[in-house]
Amino acid sequence: MASKVTPISGFQEWLPAQRIAEQHFLDTIREVFELHGFASINTRAVEPVDRLSNQGEDADKEIYGVSRLAGDDSSEASLGLHFDLTVPFARYTLEHSGKLTFPFRRYQIQQAWRGERPQRGRYREFTQADIDIVDANELPSHYEAELLLVIADVFSRLPVGDYRIHVNNRKICQGFYQGIGIEDVIGTLRIVDKLDKVGDDGVTKLLLAAGCTRPQVDQCLALAQICTADSTFVDQVQALGVHNDTLEEGLAHLKSIIDTANEHAPGVAVADLRIARGLDYYTGTVYETMLEREPSYGSICSGGRYDALASDGKRTYPGVGISIGVSRLLGLLIGEEGLSASRETPSVVLVAVNHEDSRPESMRVAAALRARGIPTLVSPKAAKFGKQIQFADRRGIPYVWFPGSEADSPAAIHAPSTGTGDELDATGTGDQVKDIRSGDQVSADRDTWTPPTADLHPTIAFPE
Amino acid sequence: MASKVTPISGFQEWLPAQRIAEQHFLDTIREVFELHGFASINTRAVEPVDRLSNQGEDADKEIYGVSRLAGDDSSEASLGLHFDLTVPFARYTLEHSGKLTFPFRRYQIQQAWRGERPQRGRYREFTQADIDIVDANELPSHYEAELLLVIADVFSRLPVGDYRIHVNNRKICQGFYQGIGIEDVIGTLRIVDKLDKVGDDGVTKLLLAAGCTRPQVDQCLALAQICTADSTFVDQVQALGVHNDTLEEGLAHLKSIIDTANEHAPGVAVADLRIARGLDYYTGTVYETMLEREPSYGSICSGGRYDALASDGKRTYPGVGISIGVSRLLGLLIGEEGLSASRETPSVVLVAVNHEDSRPESMRVAAALRARGIPTLVSPKAAKFGKQIQFADRRGIPYVWFPGSEADSPAAIHAPSTGTGDELDATGTGDQVKDIRSGDQVSADRDTWTPPTADLHPTIAFPE
Repeated sequence: MASKVTPISGFQEWLPAQRIAEQHFLDTIREVFELHGFASINTRAVEPVDRLSNQGEDADKEIYGVSRLAGDDSSEASLGLHFDLTVPFARYTLEHSGKLTFPFRRYQIQQAWRGERPQRGRYREFTQADIDIVDANELPSHYEAELLLVIADVFSRLPVGDYRIHVNNRKICQGFYQGIGIEDVIGTLRIVDKLDKVGDDGVTKLLLAAGCTRPQVDQCLALAQICTADSTFVDQVQALGVHNDTLEEGLAHLKSIIDTANEHAPGVAVADLRIARGLDYYTGTVYETMLEREPSYGSICSGGRYDALASDGKRTYPGVGISIGVSRLLGLLIGEEGLSASRETPSVVLVAVNHEDSRPESMRVAAALRARGIPTLVSPKAAKFGKQIQFADRRGIPYVWFPGSEADSPAAIHAPSTGTGDELDATGTGDQVKDIRSGDQVSADRDTWTPPTADLHPTIAFPE
Repeated sequence: MASKVTPISGFQEWLPAQRIAEQHFLDTIREVFELHGFASINTRAVEPVDRLSNQGEDADKEIYGVSRLAGDDSSEASLGLHFDLTVPFARYTLEHSGKLTFPFRRYQIQQAWRGERPQRGRYREFTQADIDIVDANELPSHYEAELLLVIADVFSRLPVGDYRIHVNNRKICQGFYQGIGIEDVIGTLRIVDKLDKVGDDGVTKLLLAAGCTRPQVDQCLALAQICTADSTFVDQVQALGVHNDTLEEGLAHLKSIIDTANEHAPGVAVADLRIARGLDYYTGTVYETMLEREPSYGSICSGGRYDALASDGKRTYPGVGISIGVSRLLGLLIGEEGLSASRETPSVVLVAVNHEDSRPESMRVAAALRARGIPTLVSPKAAKFGKQIQFADRRGIPYVWFPGSEADSPAAIHAPSTGTGDELDATGTGDQVKDIRSGDQVSADRDTWTPPTADLHPTIAFPE
């Protein structure tokens, strides 16, 4: 095999202990999604390029095309790797609509690929964890509060630190802009969305250049500055003196979400009227989630309400969805902040091998422990006990099991022939287990002994 | 969005209930791999094409190339999707060898892609579950028996039906062929490997054409016919009267594996001297796994021992690995035999909504149940109770929870305004839960009630 190995920029891989931390996140996300009644789907990695490429003006640049290197693909559709999980979900919904039960609540935890320039928090291959609720033709608005609570439940179980879900409603901006006489709502939204990048002055210039009057600009900026953790944003907006039915609808709707969030998950949500989301297909609530310690890192969980995820001519499927950027989040937590697991293997016990002839006996011990759910490894070699203990220590395995001699086993030996010095503890006739952190060694029964719960599986933590 | 949807041949997707069955398999495989001390890694989907394409004469035809549709990739390496998990694992081992602890036991459950013609049990996108143990420079042979036991442990927990792991050792064939004067061992192996396809007569013709004498052909066929569930294959081989050191070494080795397997997992392994495996890199033990009811379906779990997974010039990494063809296995069990889940959602309880104003109370019930690990859904609408029960029934959700009226809740109502007829059970002042299969309805406390363990999560079964 070729021996030269080179990392590929934008394609992140973890070492085993880091991977355990990643698995902990993925497992927790899945567990909470299922607790909230979302069903899993997994879609193929590829979609026809024409389905991927009509998703927005800039999408083409990001698509990875896929084709057989030595194949004659002329008769086959041109394929590309999906760049998110929404496009494949829309296609899956249409393809299987006759066999799905609506409202359909699905979660999907998969990788996606984008050919964009890799940078901090942005990868070419990344994992997302999406939940969406779609219905046929109509979708109740209470789901827009519910998704936020699912995310709050996820993050309450993970070491992400302080965070806030920033919520807005497109109707507020739309109604407000219309109420002050601005006709190009989408264009204005796109400019206001640049506030983080170009600041008030930059946005002012862009809005003026787009034909807004100075009072309109001032109103737009005043709206975008409103950000409250409770429903007082309603009064602040009304104090701006703009009257519009769509605006009122959006305000009532956002108030209901913030109130619901504050009852069920206090301190998580803020009404933040500058949140726009770049994508055109959102029509109501939009979410972005910022880590308090790293606001500039960008949103780690975003989504919103859309009126038409897909349409098959007969039915239109409105929905609401939110997506945890797992790779982005872990790029920070694991990649930068050092989150990792307490050991690099699932094993909590290493069963020592007294002598190669007694390996079957060590395997019997391991089988007895595994049968009770205890991840166990048998020592690779009947080396000196000190070496076997060192083998466990290097991997962070906390317990070493010394099989005793068995009267009825022809392979039984009454003293380990290779043990020396302080390793000679294991010369009794029954099984013994040593906690190699403390050095404590006790007699143990392979059919009943269990490690403390805290040791059973690796735990994850930041470096001290 | 485009409304035309077309399945893509060779890219399999499951409906939600089928996906739950798939998840059960993936979870069980992972759990057992971890019980046996394997650590997870996940590698990127792409490798440089030159690394993929030097893996055998026919590999090129199968590779999917990946490139940015609108990018200028001239400065970037040519990439392809991995077609198995062994090539990326070899690259990962070399890339991170300084940070891994050897012997390194890894499992990897991921998708792979091959552009070959889709057919029964063969997909263009498929999931594999691999375990490998690699070491630097040397690898003890006892791992070759161990991997077989891990697979036996996996399949003992899954509804796969009767199966056998067929084991051979390349050294037996090599030594035997050399012992009867055949020099082209690999060429002969390749011909004998065609026994299933072309039969004894076909193999005879091919061997004669390759220059074997009639007595050599007869000996090769006699060897290939030996298949025993215990170590009597040794006597049968020796009765053929061939003497060769490599042959003896292979026999002793295979005997040890079969004896170990029969002690720890009786009835699982057979010594089958016709098993060759197509791949050149196996140097010792090889495995193939057949379902007894569908031997023609092909191997669902294969692998073997290799002397050089990878080499970095200083160190060579020998290993032994085995791979469960999850997609192939489930293509049969789910796709053909109808294995599926008892419901299409993880939810075991639907909390009814008495009135839209009392949705917060229903959400409180759901939160209380979820906090104790009970997957719960809140009804989408405050429809008539009969409709809400029907909503649960359609999804296979066994329990419907009726929140009672709460004196301290302004939203409390004392009789559901929309209930009629037999749905009027829920008019008490406390919470009630109905098993909609039996119709039994009882008072229940949201902080203590739990469903029977058998109902908590969906179960999987074949149709009756």
